[in-house]
Amino acid sequence: KVSPISEEKEPEGEILERCRGFMSPPVTDIGELQEREGEMRTRMEMLIMQTQADFCKALEVVDGGTFKVDRWQRNEGGGGISCVMQDGKLFEKAGVNVSVVFGYLTEEAAKQMRSRGKVLKGKDGKLPFCAMGVSSVIHPKNPHIPTVHFNYRYFEIEEEDGSKQWWFGGGTDLTPVYINKDDAFHFHNTLKEACDKHHSQYYPDFKKWCDRYFYIQHRGETRGIGGIFFDDLDSPSQEEAFSFVKSCARTVVPCYLPIVHKHLNDSFTEEEKDWQQVRRGRYVEFNLVYDRGVKFGLATPGSRIESILMSLPLSARWEYMHEPAKGTLEAEMLEALRNPKEWV
Amino acid sequence: KVSPISEEKEPEGEILERCRGFMSPPVTDIGELQEREGEMRTRMEMLIMQTQADFCKALEVVDGGTFKVDRWQRNEGGGGISCVMQDGKLFEKAGVNVSVVFGYLTEEAAKQMRSRGKVLKGKDGKLPFCAMGVSSVIHPKNPHIPTVHFNYRYFEIEEEDGSKQWWFGGGTDLTPVYINKDDAFHFHNTLKEACDKHHSQYYPDFKKWCDRYFYIQHRGETRGIGGIFFDDLDSPSQEEAFSFVKSCARTVVPCYLPIVHKHLNDSFTEEEKDWQQVRRGRYVEFNLVYDRGVKFGLATPGSRIESILMSLPLSARWEYMHEPAKGTLEAEMLEALRNPKEWV
Repeated sequence: KVSPISEEKEPEGEILERCRGFMSPPVTDIGELQEREGEMRTRMEMLIMQTQADFCKALEVVDGGTFKVDRWQRNEGGGGISCVMQDGKLFEKAGVNVSVVFGYLTEEAAKQMRSRGKVLKGKDGKLPFCAMGVSSVIHPKNPHIPTVHFNYRYFEIEEEDGSKQWWFGGGTDLTPVYINKDDAFHFHNTLKEACDKHHSQYYPDFKKWCDRYFYIQHRGETRGIGGIFFDDLDSPSQEEAFSFVKSCARTVVPCYLPIVHKHLNDSFTEEEKDWQQVRRGRYVEFNLVYDRGVKFGLATPGSRIESILMSLPLSARWEYMHEPAKGTLEAEMLEALRNPKEWV
Repeated sequence: KVSPISEEKEPEGEILERCRGFMSPPVTDIGELQEREGEMRTRMEMLIMQTQADFCKALEVVDGGTFKVDRWQRNEGGGGISCVMQDGKLFEKAGVNVSVVFGYLTEEAAKQMRSRGKVLKGKDGKLPFCAMGVSSVIHPKNPHIPTVHFNYRYFEIEEEDGSKQWWFGGGTDLTPVYINKDDAFHFHNTLKEACDKHHSQYYPDFKKWCDRYFYIQHRGETRGIGGIFFDDLDSPSQEEAFSFVKSCARTVVPCYLPIVHKHLNDSFTEEEKDWQQVRRGRYVEFNLVYDRGVKFGLATPGSRIESILMSLPLSARWEYMHEPAKGTLEAEMLEALRNPKEWV
């Protein structure tokens, strides 16, 4: 059963006006965006720029620090804007990255980009494509404030006959160092409410997909306590899929900031900091060994390594045979990673 | 031109007597080793156990700490002995691991194990195999003492017609945080002298192979300043190949310990420690993204993860856009990693 689409069909506003609030002008020339105002790639670029700005500004307010803004270009077409705050008051490393890239893909690369691996037919084997997204990882200093990650992306590809394939992907997930059931409920419930406005199966399906995706096979544990994750979303219509992605992007601040505010003055011990560093090590393991985006990025010539590896924590630790004692809070955390829970 | 084989054909001695000096009894039952005393897999298991013991004891003497010895079994056949010293006086993390595993391989897996990818024919597609090796990574605390890594291994596989394929692989390489030309010369020259006793092309060929193998593609830099690396060594004869591997294994202590002794009292600054942590991050990147042994291990069900990831440093750091200023010692280090040098 499909729930009615969100009512909040607010006007998307004048492009120039909206751009004034961004961390940097959009990747695409503003004149070009104005010319193709109604097209999905314009609307999506505006959404990811907006999401970057909203999230960065919310983090700057709570931290007191400032994001360093780097614009970069990709020789093959497009570029990005990386916002990084390192060694802030609250945040050890906070990165919010936008990228808008375009060019041509081989049929093989096009197939790999899509998780279901649909075969696409290109003119002489080459497919014009456009890919854009916003992605972020925030690693706080205080072990009682969880790490958060989100990514929302849009993909367009043109086949030999001129027909366009498009899809959305994304998700938001939380990686605490210690379990806090209220935080977990708040985080998941905020996502569930955003999902439920669009389809009653979205939250349960995308919650499961998230647990499955962020799984560290060799450790037999998930990276964190999940959230939602989806890919290849091309239904029920482009308008409705975009409306869903917009709802998700808008929950990033309400999902995370209340948790930051709640814990920013929590005291912590050296042992708690140590456990955080061990968990950071697992975060690195997931990102370097399994993450599809990182693997794709590292293997792609001309990609911006610093923006891809921005997701790694400032510091991490690997202790041989580390295993928390039974009955400890560390063991409770591990248990939730070994057997994903329903938090809502 | 082939140089004469090493004269030092010392008696390999009585098995039981030699086992007394090991960190733990060998993986294979001593009675079984005595029964097949002349076979290569026995001689190699004795060599790797001996190498582990010699290296661990040399490190214990200089550090003052003790290795923790873990024996582990592999359900599918075989097992290993992991020796780890963590948070010692000199060493942040020192691991020396022996493994001796056997069982059956699929033709696909057998092909992957060999770097040249020779096709092997098994009985009903299954190939009995035996693989053993010693491997070690030592991460010191002092940034003026380099990290060292070595690995020596032997592989045997039986084809459908009962004929045996075998080969050796291995290498020793150094990862300093700062360039010290005398150390680099000593390290490479000790390896060169060991190689030269067996073949004049071994050092130049295996030095190049090492630079090529320990290359972090996405950074455009090598992991360290190299040493030697070789694989698929099955010539000129099994006896001579083993004699070469024995020479290499015996150079581990003389390659590394003099460097440790030279620098153990060097003072260092917080900035130098920080640069060490950044280099540790690159070490993690290489090991998790590229290292064939790690990738193979993580993907193999039933492998012992803690022994595989023992090679990771106790701590590492990722700073966004870290680039040393021109003319600094850090920049000099990077330059040597971006353009591998001849040290001898």
